[in-house]
Amino acid sequence: MNDLQQRMETHIGRLSEFTATPGNGTTRLTYSKEDLQARLYIKEKMQEYGLQVREDGIGNIFGRLEGTLTGAPSVLIGSHFDSVPNGGSYDGPAGVVAGLEVAALFKENNLTPKYPLEVIALVEEEGARFEGGLMGSRGITGVLNEEDFKNLTDKDGIKTIEAMAEIGLDSSLPKKRDPKTMKAYLELHIEQGPILEGKGIPIGLVKAIVGLVQLEVTVEGKAGHAGTMPMEHRSDALVAAAKMIARLPELALNEGEGSVITTGRLNVFPNGSNVIPNKVVFTVDLRSGKEEHILSMIENVKELVDSYNDSGIKTSVAHQLYMAPKAMDSDIISLLKEKCSELDVPYCSLNSGAGHDAMVFSDVTAAAMLFIPSRDGVSHCPEEWSDSKDIATAVQILFEAAKALTEAE
Amino acid sequence: MNDLQQRMETHIGRLSEFTATPGNGTTRLTYSKEDLQARLYIKEKMQEYGLQVREDGIGNIFGRLEGTLTGAPSVLIGSHFDSVPNGGSYDGPAGVVAGLEVAALFKENNLTPKYPLEVIALVEEEGARFEGGLMGSRGITGVLNEEDFKNLTDKDGIKTIEAMAEIGLDSSLPKKRDPKTMKAYLELHIEQGPILEGKGIPIGLVKAIVGLVQLEVTVEGKAGHAGTMPMEHRSDALVAAAKMIARLPELALNEGEGSVITTGRLNVFPNGSNVIPNKVVFTVDLRSGKEEHILSMIENVKELVDSYNDSGIKTSVAHQLYMAPKAMDSDIISLLKEKCSELDVPYCSLNSGAGHDAMVFSDVTAAAMLFIPSRDGVSHCPEEWSDSKDIATAVQILFEAAKALTEAE
Repeated sequence: MNDLQQRMETHIGRLSEFTATPGNGTTRLTYSKEDLQARLYIKEKMQEYGLQVREDGIGNIFGRLEGTLTGAPSVLIGSHFDSVPNGGSYDGPAGVVAGLEVAALFKENNLTPKYPLEVIALVEEEGARFEGGLMGSRGITGVLNEEDFKNLTDKDGIKTIEAMAEIGLDSSLPKKRDPKTMKAYLELHIEQGPILEGKGIPIGLVKAIVGLVQLEVTVEGKAGHAGTMPMEHRSDALVAAAKMIARLPELALNEGEGSVITTGRLNVFPNGSNVIPNKVVFTVDLRSGKEEHILSMIENVKELVDSYNDSGIKTSVAHQLYMAPKAMDSDIISLLKEKCSELDVPYCSLNSGAGHDAMVFSDVTAAAMLFIPSRDGVSHCPEEWSDSKDIATAVQILFEAAKALTEAE
Repeated sequence: MNDLQQRMETHIGRLSEFTATPGNGTTRLTYSKEDLQARLYIKEKMQEYGLQVREDGIGNIFGRLEGTLTGAPSVLIGSHFDSVPNGGSYDGPAGVVAGLEVAALFKENNLTPKYPLEVIALVEEEGARFEGGLMGSRGITGVLNEEDFKNLTDKDGIKTIEAMAEIGLDSSLPKKRDPKTMKAYLELHIEQGPILEGKGIPIGLVKAIVGLVQLEVTVEGKAGHAGTMPMEHRSDALVAAAKMIARLPELALNEGEGSVITTGRLNVFPNGSNVIPNKVVFTVDLRSGKEEHILSMIENVKELVDSYNDSGIKTSVAHQLYMAPKAMDSDIISLLKEKCSELDVPYCSLNSGAGHDAMVFSDVTAAAMLFIPSRDGVSHCPEEWSDSKDIATAVQILFEAAKALTEAE
């Protein structure tokens, strides 16, 4: 194990101690005691690595290495440091500590950038406390405005600004940042899926963060007694729903290019063993890296659902959520590929099936993401694990890319 | 409307007033205030029609017209007078008041039977208070013994014998009745299904009360993120379950003879819109009038479920309930057919898809059932309705059959 890998293990290990559920995964809600502990650790490392530390009015942390060009935009590298309840040690922190170690390599190599390098640690990506998710990046980019931010409350009714004050954060500081101050945003994240592990490849270069549509399908039939209603007279909402759900996977497979369709939530009414269901409500989550696939899948799902509409069965489809796919910056992807080749690191291209802060930044600056393998493809659980060797490899690639982007010498 | 039909309307109307949920259907739980009110009404009518009234140690009511043969077994006619919560006015009471009016016709026609005629009003058929159902008939036949009866409690922890005492019933009286004292059990009941209404026929002669098997199927797959897990890598428990459920109806239709299969209850785990389900548990309720069909359907369901067992999906099937089909007495069915023909009443044969007290009596005596149409096939709800004209027609048939069975002159 080399020094860099050793340092990654130390960072990940230390951050994982800041959890509200010791022995049961990482639970680090935004503006909690554990947030404060992790925050102090990150700020301490930033200072140790020669960065100027500041926090914004939403609690995001920036560690800046000044550039020699006056007023030049920064190259941001980082991720988020909050977690879901009982989550893992890598989702978020892997990218934050990668940013820290890129800065450490700048220091170690006595590099002076022309464009500033900023290590960034973001709050509330998961939305585990204030819902919605991506709060830190949405604050920086202005998608979440001052007013809406102040009105957010957690499940106990505590407001964002009250929670910030509790751990000594100043919510009156600026939140939105002028896009002109940002040259690029680079984020390392664990894949949270099985593709890289399956291929035995340590680095994934994200082409796009998939677009997401959530539909809610309602199927209404007619209740009846399981014994007294002959099969021929039934309008069984569950049988109709089952026929639809059984055919959803083929719609995604026909679409191809990694498109996915999932029914994760389904509720049956009245849900009694001897009553023919009169209503079933289920979600359809559609994702794809290309908008054309998403639109095509929406049409196909609607057509499928509609085809079960008849005298006895009534169906309807409601749109609950639409997020367009976000392509990552092709120039930075080319640069990352070049650096992988120079360092002799195997890589492949893939889409991100989950949302990330990089998709918010992609609207205002050149954004790119690196993935490293997740063991067994699992995430958001205590079993989440990635190899520190892969994080160290990613740091080397990010360091080379950051050198190029900041024009450091 | 003739006199008989008018009296049916009066009885049904009066009994429907004894509800704990006025304006919202009939809620008459066993040993409740409403049970006592209905009980007093039924006993009063029995006395008015010249019957000797007694109650047994479980609260069932018997109104007896003595026969001239010493020690001869009785012909019982009746049904239950409890209800489900917010049920209808006909499920149970229609059969009780039919029994009363058969006795009234005996009186009106000055008939003296050789075999005693007993009008019977049973408690707790629905199992809405003490669970299990068919409690009155199970007590009379000894299927439910003294010990088990005493240990039954309602949801508030009140014991059967305490509840009986509250409305002045004596639980120390005998419960089980010597089968030798019963010659036949005849029950009129609403169909609770759409068959008679669909055919426009006023009388159904029940061939068998269907046997019932309840299976619980568990499908286990692997959870995963709806975005990051490619379709090809998934072990989606809900998609597998949906494929099974979509094919269940054809198993019943292939079996024929009115066999039915229902999945009424289904639960998805973890049931989040962006998580691939790792577990689905659902019920399979199988019913048929012939045991061979039930056994064949069990095999076919198991084979279907097993066929989805593979490396990613694990399935299991648990048996939760088995009740054999109960054929009704063929001699009495012939007698009822004869009486229908004599009275020029259209009839058809059908199975009962729901359980009834007659199936419990069928183990110890000759049992038979008449069905009358249910409007829209609905039951167990305030909308439950049957035509008093059909009840009156059924009373005429039961009267003729009872005359024959009791050898009355």
